[in-house]
Amino acid sequence: MKKNCLIAQSGGPTGVINASVYGIYKEAKTIAKIDNIYGAINGIKGVLNSNIFSFDDENEEEIEKLKTTPSSALGSCRHRLKEIEDSDEEYKIIFNVFSKLNIGYFFYIGGNDSMDTVKKLSEYAKKHSIDIKIIGVPKTIDNDLPETDHCPGFGSAAKYICTSVIETLYDAEVYNKNIVTIVETMGRNAGWLAASAALASEKYDNCPDLIYLPEVAFDFDEFKQDVNELLEKRGKVMIVVSEGIKNIDGEYIAAAGYSNCVKDAFGHVQLGGAGDVLKSFVKEEIEPRVKLVQFDVLQRAATHCASASDLKEAECAGRIAVQFAIKGETGKMIAYKCYRDKEYNCELKAVDVSKVANKEKKIPRNWINARGNFVNKECLDYMRPLIQGEIEGNYCDGLPAYSNLNRVKIEL
Amino acid sequence: MKKNCLIAQSGGPTGVINASVYGIYKEAKTIAKIDNIYGAINGIKGVLNSNIFSFDDENEEEIEKLKTTPSSALGSCRHRLKEIEDSDEEYKIIFNVFSKLNIGYFFYIGGNDSMDTVKKLSEYAKKHSIDIKIIGVPKTIDNDLPETDHCPGFGSAAKYICTSVIETLYDAEVYNKNIVTIVETMGRNAGWLAASAALASEKYDNCPDLIYLPEVAFDFDEFKQDVNELLEKRGKVMIVVSEGIKNIDGEYIAAAGYSNCVKDAFGHVQLGGAGDVLKSFVKEEIEPRVKLVQFDVLQRAATHCASASDLKEAECAGRIAVQFAIKGETGKMIAYKCYRDKEYNCELKAVDVSKVANKEKKIPRNWINARGNFVNKECLDYMRPLIQGEIEGNYCDGLPAYSNLNRVKIEL
Repeated sequence: MKKNCLIAQSGGPTGVINASVYGIYKEAKTIAKIDNIYGAINGIKGVLNSNIFSFDDENEEEIEKLKTTPSSALGSCRHRLKEIEDSDEEYKIIFNVFSKLNIGYFFYIGGNDSMDTVKKLSEYAKKHSIDIKIIGVPKTIDNDLPETDHCPGFGSAAKYICTSVIETLYDAEVYNKNIVTIVETMGRNAGWLAASAALASEKYDNCPDLIYLPEVAFDFDEFKQDVNELLEKRGKVMIVVSEGIKNIDGEYIAAAGYSNCVKDAFGHVQLGGAGDVLKSFVKEEIEPRVKLVQFDVLQRAATHCASASDLKEAECAGRIAVQFAIKGETGKMIAYKCYRDKEYNCELKAVDVSKVANKEKKIPRNWINARGNFVNKECLDYMRPLIQGEIEGNYCDGLPAYSNLNRVKIEL
Repeated sequence: MKKNCLIAQSGGPTGVINASVYGIYKEAKTIAKIDNIYGAINGIKGVLNSNIFSFDDENEEEIEKLKTTPSSALGSCRHRLKEIEDSDEEYKIIFNVFSKLNIGYFFYIGGNDSMDTVKKLSEYAKKHSIDIKIIGVPKTIDNDLPETDHCPGFGSAAKYICTSVIETLYDAEVYNKNIVTIVETMGRNAGWLAASAALASEKYDNCPDLIYLPEVAFDFDEFKQDVNELLEKRGKVMIVVSEGIKNIDGEYIAAAGYSNCVKDAFGHVQLGGAGDVLKSFVKEEIEPRVKLVQFDVLQRAATHCASASDLKEAECAGRIAVQFAIKGETGKMIAYKCYRDKEYNCELKAVDVSKVANKEKKIPRNWINARGNFVNKECLDYMRPLIQGEIEGNYCDGLPAYSNLNRVKIEL
């Protein structure tokens, strides 16, 4: 008997999360056992609200463009299902929608929290003997999912960060004056995004000079020493800092500030993020010419600068997810197993989602130098293959040609 | 008798200012009358300090890469020469260096202020009957030079802004929640950069919804009305604002703030720029979910996203500058004359530099809608050809392959 398939996306968007949707769609189209392909709008919330569309109603050309379109074309949510034993109300609604739509396969593309949803739904299905295969497809620019070599989305964010750090450095070199440039990247608890900027240093001197990560306690005295030394040597310093750097007590620098930091009447630092705190510190304590550059959402949305390798792997992750579901797997997440001895090679596998849900993978301490202000060769060797290759030909009339789905809600 | 040629860059860098250096170099190489080609490091200051290098000492491969390398490869300065009648001290130093190096042709690539230098130096040469041809080559992302259809550098900045505004919009659409997104662009007195985002709206709905320019007095009440109307309609608003927007009294919004704006003890607004002021205003008065994205130096440095049309024209401007100099022209700036009736066509000419120096070209009021919150068709037709075409194949091993000159100082 034919069954239908449902796709949804959850959590923060990436440059290649739509490539996984595309991969699932294209693969599902080739499977005789799969009939209709549906999308839930805004993740599991779309299922809860019966906010579902059919890919049959979409223009094939727009679906083709999904492969190189940033952000989450199906919309996203941040919604945590209750533990089944605490309340099964939402589960009943979700599985009722699945049943009405004759869903046999549900694919959820997301990060740590989304894998928690995959875990709970597949447990509920097992418990109630409901025959539906539920597979998680990883995505996160943070690269912090365990059980997978790396995460779809990270390579493209890393490539954008490297490109933009190089371009920021070139801009900072123009005048014959001292300048300290601070670039802030995303990454609350794992420093992969900030670390990725080190790849630029393999081709460009001083690009960056210093990298600060959440994995190592940040020390303002050492920072001051490091910056002063570089200023004396060259007059210019390029720093990349993760938004999530913490002090020795484990408090975020963005919230804790530094000892002479301006605070409001409630003792809160009056600034936005770690980059702002470091900028103030440099300005007051080291060098008045200091610049802060924030890549903001562009680091996860700049598909025009995506890594071809990342894009290809993200599509494959979607395709393989369908294959595993068809084979009868459920409660699994697709993961990468990579080889770097000679040529880089990436194989796809399925791992038990309970090993992934709600867990974080950080940069190993021995991949960071002793001083805690740069990453070392092991880390560079690990990251280098992930930013390779460019996508070309995805502009039309001077602008990126990104997909625009109609997402017409179907009647259940 | 053979003469030598000297090139320098001045003012803020752009994505294509090095393409003009490349054009001058390549053209000069073909001219029998020109012997050595030199570069002054950090603009006219490099001449004043005898900080000069020879292109002969550079690797040809690095010179080739100049064409698609951001920022000012020869370094830059912001230095204003005194009026000749007030003090000719610096002029004597400069022309002494020219004489020592047997310079017959001096090319200065820059914006309004740099054209003032071209004007003064050519006047000094004439006055003292010194046979040296001095030609200005325009560049500025601000697009505010008069006497030329547009400025090299603008098209690439515009293309980056459009691309990034589209990607920011895609990111903002992900969650099913109200959100106001504000993107701040450069542009102190002329709004061309903010206006350029309107090109994205030709392909993408609501991208952006509103554009605010320095050319029209900014009114917070009207702004509030506009934003509220859009929020009611769609729940999401995308705004592009020029850093240089001013209130009815001509004060910068960045400095003047709004009536209930938090100010420090000295009455100064406690924030960075126009975008920050608007963000605070929206947060307090309209919608708490508001995001500010700043493209910062990347809008002038992101050559990975350059306009092929802009790049080609910038190189041509350099080549034509040499041709005019050889023909005996001096005290001129290269300018574009463009036709848009059928196919876009750009011709190059030379204009008297005194018509350009220290002047600014703004967006005509009738190219902006009556409400002052978007540009109209004339403006779009004008800008559209300038962002066309992409550069491909300028990455190597996953990173942009940008030029790195040695710039070894020669002995005079």
